[in-house]
Amino acid sequence: MRTDRIESPVLMLDKQKCLQNIRAMVEKARRLKKSLRPHFKTHQSAEIGEWFREAGVEKITVSSVEMAAYFAAHGWEDITIAFPVNIHQAEKINTLAQKIQLNILIVNVESFKHLQGNLTHQVGFFIEIDNGNHRSGILAEAHNEIERILETAFKNQVFSFKGFLEHAGHNYRQAGNISVICGNVAKSNLVAKKLKTQFAQFNEKLIFSYGDTPSFSLCDDFEAMDELRPGNAVFYDIDQYENRACSINEIAVSLACPIVAVYPQRSEVVIHGGSVHLSKDAAVMSNGMPYYGKVVRYLKKGWELVPGAFVSGLSQEHGIVRFENRHCAGFNVGSTLGVLPVHSCLTCDINPSYFTLEGDKIEKLQKGFLRQNSEGL
Amino acid sequence: MRTDRIESPVLMLDKQKCLQNIRAMVEKARRLKKSLRPHFKTHQSAEIGEWFREAGVEKITVSSVEMAAYFAAHGWEDITIAFPVNIHQAEKINTLAQKIQLNILIVNVESFKHLQGNLTHQVGFFIEIDNGNHRSGILAEAHNEIERILETAFKNQVFSFKGFLEHAGHNYRQAGNISVICGNVAKSNLVAKKLKTQFAQFNEKLIFSYGDTPSFSLCDDFEAMDELRPGNAVFYDIDQYENRACSINEIAVSLACPIVAVYPQRSEVVIHGGSVHLSKDAAVMSNGMPYYGKVVRYLKKGWELVPGAFVSGLSQEHGIVRFENRHCAGFNVGSTLGVLPVHSCLTCDINPSYFTLEGDKIEKLQKGFLRQNSEGL
Repeated sequence: MRTDRIESPVLMLDKQKCLQNIRAMVEKARRLKKSLRPHFKTHQSAEIGEWFREAGVEKITVSSVEMAAYFAAHGWEDITIAFPVNIHQAEKINTLAQKIQLNILIVNVESFKHLQGNLTHQVGFFIEIDNGNHRSGILAEAHNEIERILETAFKNQVFSFKGFLEHAGHNYRQAGNISVICGNVAKSNLVAKKLKTQFAQFNEKLIFSYGDTPSFSLCDDFEAMDELRPGNAVFYDIDQYENRACSINEIAVSLACPIVAVYPQRSEVVIHGGSVHLSKDAAVMSNGMPYYGKVVRYLKKGWELVPGAFVSGLSQEHGIVRFENRHCAGFNVGSTLGVLPVHSCLTCDINPSYFTLEGDKIEKLQKGFLRQNSEGL
Repeated sequence: MRTDRIESPVLMLDKQKCLQNIRAMVEKARRLKKSLRPHFKTHQSAEIGEWFREAGVEKITVSSVEMAAYFAAHGWEDITIAFPVNIHQAEKINTLAQKIQLNILIVNVESFKHLQGNLTHQVGFFIEIDNGNHRSGILAEAHNEIERILETAFKNQVFSFKGFLEHAGHNYRQAGNISVICGNVAKSNLVAKKLKTQFAQFNEKLIFSYGDTPSFSLCDDFEAMDELRPGNAVFYDIDQYENRACSINEIAVSLACPIVAVYPQRSEVVIHGGSVHLSKDAAVMSNGMPYYGKVVRYLKKGWELVPGAFVSGLSQEHGIVRFENRHCAGFNVGSTLGVLPVHSCLTCDINPSYFTLEGDKIEKLQKGFLRQNSEGL
């Protein structure tokens, strides 16, 4: 695709890097003898989903009922919604559970009681364990609460207890400290063993599902876990790079942006590419300053890093790119510059589609997919 | 509209507050005897645009060619694109300039030279002045550069010099210090006077256009300016509130979010409402901690602030709401909570539509409006 005459910001996908990332995920799970249920919230694309399927993936994770409906419509038949169930979505859950193997996430007995009587089709469920991330989930020590949920479920034929699920969000805050991250995995291995013994009466073969990209990329010992759910590893990003979970060359997406102004005295250029294209998630430089992406130059095939260049500021449509080495690296008004995003999940979410380096448009889930009017908000 | 059974996050619009904000803008401009060219990048909605038209507004500002095309398709005939022109969009500019009075923004002579020969229809242009914001624009002192642009334009019939334009983005970084913000306006008044004298030979009636919401809301003396371009004032947000540009009651949008978990021991609830719904823009509390919105409770009509409650964390779909007063204010699993966004421009950009309190869906510009395939990226 011609990236030298870009009219407005476009999300570029290096398909070869992406396929390599998918292969690496599949091979690692195979080597560790773990079930792989990749999280599709990063790419949100049926077509990219097919690349996973071709690599042998059969079950997936999503983060909303809407996303589950989208991927079910594209032939996925085993989906876990790794977000605490909303009791007002019983009807949509029924519709999906009629068609596919659907697993929902339970984080409290209240939701569960509400769903009783409203769910009519067999649905699997995981209980989320709060492993120290303190976002959602039940503490592993809260034996009574877990038991109340399982006993309630046991009386109701529609609920099928699958096991426990953890999201290791706290692994993102360790600045790539492998011993801390893999130490968190070791702690969760202990929790998994204990829970499997304690609640074997409810399911002898219960699954322990664990998910985050840093630990999947950096650790090997998932001894007591059965299922792994990396998501961001499909594209990676600067945040994962700063967390040492990937190399710069493994990052598979970049935002191509036209340059609209060059300020050599400031060692800055202004791009069309702002917070509505990149998102406002920031990484932090060694001097403590936030930044919003690293800069690449497009080549005939692919892109290469421009050392010392970064996005120093974002407003709605403007991005400011600063060059540490005091010259603007040959970039001119009208030429194109690429930005490796800090958080590819958010950058991909806010862009309407991808374009491969070969110029093919790749569709993804559109916002408002399930909502046509105020009925059933 | 029933907000007590929300299935997934929805952007609520209090139409009465919004109409009042629009009236206040129109009345202030009238009182100051200034031309009003509101920025439509905040709402991006044809229907909300009509509310401005009914209040007497005839000309508008947008931040991209795409947004200009959208509003031109909805009957707006005088549009300024307040973003540095991209030389590769000459064709789309021609298409628009054929139909409406279109003004573009010039920040360097290079862009201008490129456009010569490629633009075929009469287009107005403003030269952007960098008033200390250091985003884009030419320094007012760079007399030679401005003159080069104007002389180039003078030779070419399609370019019509309208005047100078400033965006006072630095007014957002003053924490509501009125004397500093109105001091910046005073400096720009001096610049405006000087530029009008210096470049009168190119247009005796040149316009000086100034824009940002804090100064529009807080200051009165725009003596040497002709046109004002407030944008965010249509909805306001927590950032404007922290900047003392509005009261909490003037904020016209809130994100309605279902509560999926309650953690009384943590004094926290978890909502479906994450960075893909609110954006990652943060405000800062007095203790230096970032936060992502204040909390409201929905009433039969409208909403009311829940004091001491704020969004303390965001991941892709989850929001964590913390209650400073150590109890969760009667919120339960399955009930709905509203979030006043930190930056309404970004929150509105990433949501697919609005719903009024009465349950009416309000459409807005959809991402990818102008891009159907990789042709003409």
